[in-house]
Amino acid sequence: MIIVLESDVPVGSSVALLDAARAAGRAARSMPDGHGGLVVTVDGNLPDDVLAVPGIRTVERSHKPYPLASAEHRAQTVVTVGDVEIGGGRPVVMAGPCSIEGRDSLLRAAHAVRAAGADILRGGAFKPRTSPYSFQGLGEEGLRYLAEAREQTGMPVITEVMEPEQVDLVCEYADILQIGTRNMSNFPLLRRVGEARKPVLLKRGMSARVDEWLMSAEYVMAGGNHQVILCERGIRGFDPATRFTLDLTVVPLLRQLTHLPIIIDPSHGTGIRSLVGPMALAGVVAGADGIFIEAEPNPERATSDAAQTIDPETLRDIVARTRMLSQAMSAPLVPVVAAVPAPEWELSLAAAD
Amino acid sequence: MIIVLESDVPVGSSVALLDAARAAGRAARSMPDGHGGLVVTVDGNLPDDVLAVPGIRTVERSHKPYPLASAEHRAQTVVTVGDVEIGGGRPVVMAGPCSIEGRDSLLRAAHAVRAAGADILRGGAFKPRTSPYSFQGLGEEGLRYLAEAREQTGMPVITEVMEPEQVDLVCEYADILQIGTRNMSNFPLLRRVGEARKPVLLKRGMSARVDEWLMSAEYVMAGGNHQVILCERGIRGFDPATRFTLDLTVVPLLRQLTHLPIIIDPSHGTGIRSLVGPMALAGVVAGADGIFIEAEPNPERATSDAAQTIDPETLRDIVARTRMLSQAMSAPLVPVVAAVPAPEWELSLAAAD
Amino acid sequence: MIIVLESDVPVGSSVALLDAARAAGRAARSMPDGHGGLVVTVDGNLPDDVLAVPGIRTVERSHKPYPLASAEHRAQTVVTVGDVEIGGGRPVVMAGPCSIEGRDSLLRAAHAVRAAGADILRGGAFKPRTSPYSFQGLGEEGLRYLAEAREQTGMPVITEVMEPEQVDLVCEYADILQIGTRNMSNFPLLRRVGEARKPVLLKRGMSARVDEWLMSAEYVMAGGNHQVILCERGIRGFDPATRFTLDLTVVPLLRQLTHLPIIIDPSHGTGIRSLVGPMALAGVVAGADGIFIEAEPNPERATSDAAQTIDPETLRDIVARTRMLSQAMSAPLVPVVAAVPAPEWELSLAAAD
Amino acid sequence: MIIVLESDVPVGSSVALLDAARAAGRAARSMPDGHGGLVVTVDGNLPDDVLAVPGIRTVERSHKPYPLASAEHRAQTVVTVGDVEIGGGRPVVMAGPCSIEGRDSLLRAAHAVRAAGADILRGGAFKPRTSPYSFQGLGEEGLRYLAEAREQTGMPVITEVMEPEQVDLVCEYADILQIGTRNMSNFPLLRRVGEARKPVLLKRGMSARVDEWLMSAEYVMAGGNHQVILCERGIRGFDPATRFTLDLTVVPLLRQLTHLPIIIDPSHGTGIRSLVGPMALAGVVAGADGIFIEAEPNPERATSDAAQTIDPETLRDIVARTRMLSQAMSAPLVPVVAAVPAPEWELSLAAAD
Repeated sequence: MIIVLESDVPVGSSVALLDAARAAGRAARSMPDGHGGLVVTVDGNLPDDVLAVPGIRTVERSHKPYPLASAEHRAQTVVTVGDVEIGGGRPVVMAGPCSIEGRDSLLRAAHAVRAAGADILRGGAFKPRTSPYSFQGLGEEGLRYLAEAREQTGMPVITEVMEPEQVDLVCEYADILQIGTRNMSNFPLLRRVGEARKPVLLKRGMSARVDEWLMSAEYVMAGGNHQVILCERGIRGFDPATRFTLDLTVVPLLRQLTHLPIIIDPSHGTGIRSLVGPMALAGVVAGADGIFIEAEPNPERATSDAAQTIDPETLRDIVARTRMLSQAMSAPLVPVVAAVPAPEWELSLAAAD
Repeated sequence: MIIVLESDVPVGSSVALLDAARAAGRAARSMPDGHGGLVVTVDGNLPDDVLAVPGIRTVERSHKPYPLASAEHRAQTVVTVGDVEIGGGRPVVMAGPCSIEGRDSLLRAAHAVRAAGADILRGGAFKPRTSPYSFQGLGEEGLRYLAEAREQTGMPVITEVMEPEQVDLVCEYADILQIGTRNMSNFPLLRRVGEARKPVLLKRGMSARVDEWLMSAEYVMAGGNHQVILCERGIRGFDPATRFTLDLTVVPLLRQLTHLPIIIDPSHGTGIRSLVGPMALAGVVAGADGIFIEAEPNPERATSDAAQTIDPETLRDIVARTRMLSQAMSAPLVPVVAAVPAPEWELSLAAAD
Repeated sequence: MIIVLESDVPVGSSVALLDAARAAGRAARSMPDGHGGLVVTVDGNLPDDVLAVPGIRTVERSHKPYPLASAEHRAQTVVTVGDVEIGGGRPVVMAGPCSIEGRDSLLRAAHAVRAAGADILRGGAFKPRTSPYSFQGLGEEGLRYLAEAREQTGMPVITEVMEPEQVDLVCEYADILQIGTRNMSNFPLLRRVGEARKPVLLKRGMSARVDEWLMSAEYVMAGGNHQVILCERGIRGFDPATRFTLDLTVVPLLRQLTHLPIIIDPSHGTGIRSLVGPMALAGVVAGADGIFIEAEPNPERATSDAAQTIDPETLRDIVARTRMLSQAMSAPLVPVVAAVPAPEWELSLAAAD
Repeated sequence: MIIVLESDVPVGSSVALLDAARAAGRAARSMPDGHGGLVVTVDGNLPDDVLAVPGIRTVERSHKPYPLASAEHRAQTVVTVGDVEIGGGRPVVMAGPCSIEGRDSLLRAAHAVRAAGADILRGGAFKPRTSPYSFQGLGEEGLRYLAEAREQTGMPVITEVMEPEQVDLVCEYADILQIGTRNMSNFPLLRRVGEARKPVLLKRGMSARVDEWLMSAEYVMAGGNHQVILCERGIRGFDPATRFTLDLTVVPLLRQLTHLPIIIDPSHGTGIRSLVGPMALAGVVAGADGIFIEAEPNPERATSDAAQTIDPETLRDIVARTRMLSQAMSAPLVPVVAAVPAPEWELSLAAAD
C-alpha cells in the first residue's frame, strides 16, 4: 500500500501511519516525494480507519512492485555530490581509469580527465576479475590515492564496493558507491549500501530485465538510502563484434518508470575505443543524465580494459559535443519544415470518392 | 582476390582481368570505388602474370569475406532516389503507415508525413504476418496507391518485396525495395534483387550478427546491384519491456566496416510509441544516415503495429530535432572546457617520488 | 471459431458449415481430428443458427491462434513416409551428408547410414550459404542422385526447398520437404508448401519463439497440408563454446501444445561432432519422435559443416542406444526404491508440536 | 605454469617447487591429480633450473586459464558426502523444498523425498529474492531444521550461502554449500568458500559463458577447496514460454573440459512442473552426475517457485526412470541393427564410373 501525504500535513500524521503499520505487524517506510510531501509505503494494506488521518493525498492498494523507485509517486531525483548535480538537467561526466594502478598514474589520469571536462573521477580499488590469478586491485591503498586525487582536483570520486564488509571502508573515502554488474542481484550487499549514507550507482546486471533492475534499486531504497543512480553498461548479446550490447532504449523507458537518474557506460557497453564517443553522445541525446567512461593518458598500458579505454583528447571532444548536444536538445524547437498546404490532394481524394 | 585499378587506367585493363578470370574458371565482378577507380573481385586468386596489366593500385589475396560491401576498397556510397540522397550527410526521414489499408488513408498519411518533413514514403503492400489469418496486405492494389501518393507528394516510395517472383512487379512501382528482417537470409530473394536496378534497403535479421548481415548485402552486390542501404531494426532480446532491442552500436561499427548507408528503425526497434523519438535522435547522433518510422494520422486505428506508430505532430518534432542535432554534430567543435593548468600537482607528484 | 464434428456425422453437416462460412465471407477449412471426426476452423465467428446442424461435438469461440496445429482438437499426428512412421512411438533416424557433393559420395553415404540403422536419408541439393561465393549445391542434379540413393537403399529422402518456384521440382524427387531455419518465417514459401502433397519438416527459426514456430506450422496447415514435422535445431545463444544452443525443453513443451511430431537436430544444435551423440540421446529421452543428423563416411572432407558431421560408426552407436533408451522409456515403471516407512518421524513431529 | 609430479615422487620435490615459486614472488598451489600424483600450478613461469627436481612428469607453460578445473591434468573428481558419491557413476538426486518454511513442513518434505529415492536434501534458509519485500528465508532457524532433517533421514543436506560472513555459520549445519546463479561472479564469496572445507555446488550464472563458469570454479579451487560441483540451472533466453532455457549441451561439453561433477537443475531450468521430469531424464542421459529438483508434499502451497515444484509421487517416478536409464546407458552396446551387405551398389557405382 502506498500513501502520499500533502506537504502541509503535520508530521504527526506520518508518525501515526508508521505506528499503525508497526502495530499491525507490517513493515513501512517513508520517502520525500520531491514536492514537499511524503510517500509512505507499507508491506500489505492498512485498515481503513487508520487512513482517517488528515492530509492524505492518495492511497493506492495495487501498485508497481517497486513503490519507492517508481516514477508515480515522486519528482525526478537529483543526487548532489560536492557541487555536481546528477539528474539536474546538465549531463554529468564520470571518467578515469578502470583500475587504480599506482599513485602517480592515478593522479596524472585525474588531472587529465579534469582538464578534459570530467565532473567526477572514477577508478577501481577493488576489482571484480574473471580470473583469480589477475590483478585484483590495490584495495585500501587505492582508496587513499583516490582521496588524494579528489583533494588535488576538486572532483568527487566514485569507486566499486564488492562485499558488505567493505562498505564502511569504502564510505570513508568515496563520494559515490558503485555496485558492479555482477553484483546487481547481490542482495546482502544491496541491503548494506541501503544503510549507508552515500549515493549508490547501481549498474544493470548483464542479463537483468528492467523490472529486476528497479527491484534491486528498491532493495537499496528500502534500507533508507534514496540516492540511487542507475547505470546501463551493456547486456549480454549474441554478436561477438562488440563486448556487450549497449541497450540505450532503457534510457527513455526508465525515464517513464522511475524518478532515479540514469547514466550510460559506453566503455563496457561496446568494449571498443572508437565506439565510445558516438555511443556516449547517443546516450545523452536519448536522455541520459550522464556518461561513465574509462579514460586515462596511456590507454594502451592499462592492465585491464585497455581496448575500451580512451585518451584525454578524445574525452575532451566527447565532453564538448555532449555539452553542445545537451544545449541543442534543451533549445526550444523551431520547426525547420514548413507546413505544406494540401488543397489539391484533398480535392483529389474527393474526386476519387 | 581483390584488385583495385587506378582511375586513369584504360578500360581494357579491367576487361583483360575479367577475361582472365573467366578463362581460369573463376567468377569475377567489378564495382566503382567511389573515387573514379574500379574494384575487381575474383573468387579465388589469379596467377601473377595476369596481374601484369598496368594501372593496378593494390592487390589483396586475403581479405574480408564481403569484399564488395567492405569499407576497405571504396568511398562512402550515396544512394540517390529522386532528389533525395541517402548517405550524403543529411539524415533522411522515411515515414508512413505500416500497412497500406486503402487509397484514402494512404494519401492522407502521405501528405501528413510530407508536411511533417519526411523525405521518403514507406508503406507495406505485401505484409509478412505471423498469422496466416491476419490481413496480408493489399498487394498490387496497394502498390498503385503508393505510386499515386508519390505523384501527389513528390516523395520517392519504399515498400517490401517478399519473394523472388514479386520483384519485377514491385520494381514497376517502388523506388526502393525493402527486404524485411525475416528475409535477410532468404538468399534466392537477395540474388533476385541483386539483378534489379532499384536500391535495396536490407533490414537486419532479428538475430543476425553484423558479419552475417554484411554477407547478405554482399549477395545483393555480387549480383551487380551496389545500391544497398542497411537498416537496423532491433534484435531479439530477453526483456519483454520492449518489443526488440535496438542495437544502436552497430551504427558506428558499420561505419568502420562498410561504405553502405545505415538507417535506423526505432518503431520496430522499441515497439513503443513514446520511445520512438528519443531513439530516432540517438540513432542520428550515433551516425545514422537516416530514420525509418511508422507514422500516420490515426495511429490507434492501424491494423498492424498500432502501438509503435506515431502521429504527424510527433514526427514533425522528431524531424526538426533531427535536423538541429545533425547541424550541431557537423559544426566545428569549440571545446567548452578550458584546459586546467596543473603546476601544483606536478609538484605534488615530484614531491612523492 | 473452431467446430469439432463427431465421427458419425453425415458429410453434409461439414459441407453446410463450410458453405455457411463462405456465404458469410469468412475463410474456413477442415482437418481430420485423428479420431474419425472433423475439425472445422473459421476465421471469425458464424451466427448461432448456422450451428444448428446435428453432430457438433464442441464449438469454441476463443482459442489458440494456431487452431490447426494445437493439441486441443486432434490426436497425435503420425506422418507416414514409405514404411516409416514419424510420430508413431519409435524414434526415427534421418541421416546423411550436409550437402550432396556428387553421385558416388552420396551413394556411399546413403548405404553407410542405412547400414548404421538410419530410416530416412537427408542431403542438401539447394543449400542456403551465408556467402554468395560458397558452393550453393548441385541443384536438380543433386535431386536426381538423391532419388537414385532412395532406389538403391529403399530409404525415403528429405531435402531442403528454398523458394516457392522450387517446390514443384523438389516434390518430384523428395519424400519430405525441408524448410530451413532461415525460412521459418518465409511466408510465401510456407503457403506454397501448404499446397503441396508431401510432408514438410519445419525447422525452428534460430530466434523464433515457440508460438511463432507453431504459427508457421499453421501457415502450412492452413493451405491444406497437415503433414508437418517440427525440428528443433538450436537457437542463437551468447556462448561461442557451441555453434547454437540446443533448446531441448521445447520437446516436452511442444508435446503439450501440439499434435505434430517433433524431431531434434543435434548436429546444427551443437556444431561439435563429439556432442552430437549425447544430445541425440537426450532428445529422444526428452520425448522427441526422431533425430536429424549429419553423417557420412568421410566427415573431414565435407565442404560444409565438417566439424559437426559424424561417421557411420558413431551413427551406428547412436542408433543402437536410441533404440535401447526408447525401449527403456516405454517399459512399465518398476520403482527401484522402496517406500520407506516413517513412523518415527511422525512421532518426532508430534513431539515437537 | 603447470607442473605434474609422478605418484612415486618424494614429497620433498613438491615442497621444493612451492618454495622456489615463493622465493620468485609467484603464487603457487597444489592439487592431487586423482591418480596418486600431484598438480602444481604457478602464476607465471619458474626458471628452468628450478625444474631440475626429479619426478616431474610434464611441464606446461601455456595452458587453459583454469588449470585446476581443467580436465587436462587430473582424473574425474568424485565428491563424497556421507555415503553419497557425486561423480562416481551413479546419478545423484538432490531434492527438497525451495525455501524452508517451518520445521514440520521441512521434515515432512525430507521424509517424502527420501521415500521417493532422493540422496541429498535441499532447502533454502537464506533466500535471494528479487523483491526486498518478499520472504527472505528463516536464516539460522532454517539451518537448524535442516540439520534435524538430516538426523532423521540420514540424508546429507545442501543449502545456499549468500555472503562471505555467512560461510562459517552455514558450514556448521550444511554438508554442501550452494552458490546461487546470482552469485556465480561474487568473487569475495567464492574466495571465502574456497577456504571452507565443505563441498561447493556452483550454479551457472544465468548469462555466464562456460569459460567464465569454470573461472569461477577456479576461484574456489585456488583457495584450496577442490570439491566443486557444477550445476546448470538454465540461462536467460528470449522465449517467455519457459522461465529459463536449460542448456543441456553443457553437460557433454563440460565433461571434455573439466574433471568436476555436473548436476542439472530442471526445476529452475524450465519453471514448469510438467517439464521437470523429461528434462531431468534428458540431463542424465546427456551425462549428468545428478539432478537437483524442487519437490515437496504440497507444491501448490510453496511460498516460492510453486509452479516448478513437483510432488513426491512424480519425484519417485523420475528417480526410478533415472536409475533405469542410467543402467541402460552403462550396459554394453549390442547393435540392434544388422550391417547390411552392399555388393549391388558397389557394382552400381562401378557401372557409373
